[in-house]
Amino acid sequence: MTVRAGVVVTGTEVLAGRVADRNGPWVAQQLLELGVDVAHITICGDRPDDLTAQVQFLADQRVDLIITTGGLGPTADDLTVATVAALYGREMHLDVRLEKRISEIVERWRSRLSSAVDSEPLKAGIRKQAMVPEGAQSISPTGTAPGVAISANESGTLPAVLILPGPPRELQAMWSEALACAPIAQVLTRRAQIRQDTIRAYKLSEADLAATLRTAERAIEGFDALEITTCLSLGELEMVTRYAEPAAPAYSDLVGLIGKHHGAQVFSTDGSTIDDIVADRLTGRRIATAESCTGGMIAARLTDRAGSSAYVIGAVVSYANETKTGLLDVPTESIEQHGAVSEPVAASMAEGARHRLGVDIAVSTSGIAGPGGGTELKPVGTVCFAIAAADRPTVTRTLLLPGDRASVRALSTTAAMHMLADALKPDR
Amino acid sequence: MTVRAGVVVTGTEVLAGRVADRNGPWVAQQLLELGVDVAHITICGDRPDDLTAQVQFLADQRVDLIITTGGLGPTADDLTVATVAALYGREMHLDVRLEKRISEIVERWRSRLSSAVDSEPLKAGIRKQAMVPEGAQSISPTGTAPGVAISANESGTLPAVLILPGPPRELQAMWSEALACAPIAQVLTRRAQIRQDTIRAYKLSEADLAATLRTAERAIEGFDALEITTCLSLGELEMVTRYAEPAAPAYSDLVGLIGKHHGAQVFSTDGSTIDDIVADRLTGRRIATAESCTGGMIAARLTDRAGSSAYVIGAVVSYANETKTGLLDVPTESIEQHGAVSEPVAASMAEGARHRLGVDIAVSTSGIAGPGGGTELKPVGTVCFAIAAADRPTVTRTLLLPGDRASVRALSTTAAMHMLADALKPDR
Repeated sequence: MTVRAGVVVTGTEVLAGRVADRNGPWVAQQLLELGVDVAHITICGDRPDDLTAQVQFLADQRVDLIITTGGLGPTADDLTVATVAALYGREMHLDVRLEKRISEIVERWRSRLSSAVDSEPLKAGIRKQAMVPEGAQSISPTGTAPGVAISANESGTLPAVLILPGPPRELQAMWSEALACAPIAQVLTRRAQIRQDTIRAYKLSEADLAATLRTAERAIEGFDALEITTCLSLGELEMVTRYAEPAAPAYSDLVGLIGKHHGAQVFSTDGSTIDDIVADRLTGRRIATAESCTGGMIAARLTDRAGSSAYVIGAVVSYANETKTGLLDVPTESIEQHGAVSEPVAASMAEGARHRLGVDIAVSTSGIAGPGGGTELKPVGTVCFAIAAADRPTVTRTLLLPGDRASVRALSTTAAMHMLADALKPDR
Repeated sequence: MTVRAGVVVTGTEVLAGRVADRNGPWVAQQLLELGVDVAHITICGDRPDDLTAQVQFLADQRVDLIITTGGLGPTADDLTVATVAALYGREMHLDVRLEKRISEIVERWRSRLSSAVDSEPLKAGIRKQAMVPEGAQSISPTGTAPGVAISANESGTLPAVLILPGPPRELQAMWSEALACAPIAQVLTRRAQIRQDTIRAYKLSEADLAATLRTAERAIEGFDALEITTCLSLGELEMVTRYAEPAAPAYSDLVGLIGKHHGAQVFSTDGSTIDDIVADRLTGRRIATAESCTGGMIAARLTDRAGSSAYVIGAVVSYANETKTGLLDVPTESIEQHGAVSEPVAASMAEGARHRLGVDIAVSTSGIAGPGGGTELKPVGTVCFAIAAADRPTVTRTLLLPGDRASVRALSTTAAMHMLADALKPDR
């Protein structure tokens, strides 16, 4: 038996495209990992009629669970709880213990705030946040907004609903308690045990993978029980497969077939990302970057990770030629002879970073991100890379990357990560 | 008269939260700027029933225009056009000229591809993409997928619909032609002339702005005609106001009032971002960064901008202490005495970058991004900044920033941009 869910994301700033929604994707991923099928995500502004219409739409679609995010704040335009309660025909009442709890949280924050806070509106806001629909269960706030869970109605026309706050950190911190509370736990008991596995490949085209999947369809028994989606992003092709336990042998056969056809491109079958792999292979080593067109993006990505100070020593962003010569010892003649965007200069940058920062391995980029600066011989998107490592020759490479400035920079960063992973391979 | 629109984003990978949707926000912003009201955004996977349900939902909500994104590819799971055509009761027919045009585009791409492409499926895919619903208008492809526009049906139960491809660059490149085509242009003639203006402030709390807005409500005639939404992100409070021309004086009064109460926090009233302001003020100057906890994020952000090579000379990411001393001349004793996360070390880093890279201004960061490394005196989130500039003393500052590692790094980067903007102010 499967459980279907719908997610309603509220917030005028999300609907207007001014803020990227982080809750819909996060909730969807959590649900899918739990074996819940996500049927719809809807986004609405702070208008009660639109919110009612979306919740009613999901109920009409016969989902078993609705999760809403946002609209739980203390101000008048935060109206999710009241709107859902009205649709479900539940009176609202003040939960005095909740009111006390929120007051304590606010008091703690207030003592840290520099700006004076208006006292009457504050109390009214706390009271508003402590209003709970009849028969609903509240979920402890991690910010000031408690969550609310309501069971499906008796006639079965309205499914269980879980109302969570908008700030992603608050929502995520409340997630386990929310799943465990009775109205939601009851729905989840009906979910299927679904496995979800991911294969990641670099520089594999969707067309080539599609051809292999057509072969698999003919060759692998039980292939139809695998629900496969593929997605190409920054040169990485991600294939996610969802399947019930009995289809595990079919999935295992599929992994084998893909490995046989595209072994050189597949870099992960256990869910790890290229960042995980690079970090893992850097254990016990020291790394630096020398970046021109990526402007620090590789260093930023490497240090995004907790604990990266164990292996990231530093980086030089040598945007100007004088920085290439001054901080990375790139010979002026090399720049004059080959141009800043050239493999010899990239090689000198990586070697310079390796020596100046005293690391085991250094990666460099020098390219034309555009929109200006392209020539016939070196059009926009031309990017030279080098990897300098101890006890082996420096390796260089030139790619012609498509798209605009942001695309060329992002693709270059990902390409550098893959070159690092290759260079750090244990068998090399 | 207002025009209301709904947006349907398709794609299993978006619904599953594996890929962030860029089309919904972009389309919503474009529509709002045109004076079209966006009522709903819905996200669905590649299932025809769910797509039909969402389009029908928007029709039931009486929107005047539906825009769909995605599902126009050559493969079987790309089914937006056929699904919408079925709902609208339109037969599909092959547009031979379109088929030829797509073939030419594919041929051009194919000649650049290294991997062999299977010929029969390719032709079938092109034929599929050249199928157009009866009476619909096609929009020239910029990738291989043409768009489709269908007028509202005669009974008025189904609104005009614009079907666009999923890749953001293709969609955006087709936008003007899409708006100009008859079925869509006809709807847009009914739109209101709406202005949209933005005020941006840094370190202004939502509560303080709300108090000023309550004052404005009492004091400013015509205030009710202003549709205001506020949004706090990375310490920046953005207030977007939409209004019809007659409310322009009320908006102007509001800008005056906000300036009076929060002049020190407001940094933009003309739509410019802090990145625009910093870039503008760097004209004719040279900048470098010296980054520890931000790991290159400030340099990456500065160089994100086309033309930034005119003023960005480079950066040193001095993640390890030895890089701080070796490349930025931070005295070892200073690190020993004050710790790497201290204002004296941040000052030395900025000054070192200024001298080593020969720039007019340098900004530095040194902080504890977490999750480890915090102490009682310097908890996670402690970040020291410095700005070193010619002919004036180096300025330092310490902030305690909230949240997890990613949050601390992002807030630090934005804080550095604001410190740079302040330091570069013309009257200083």
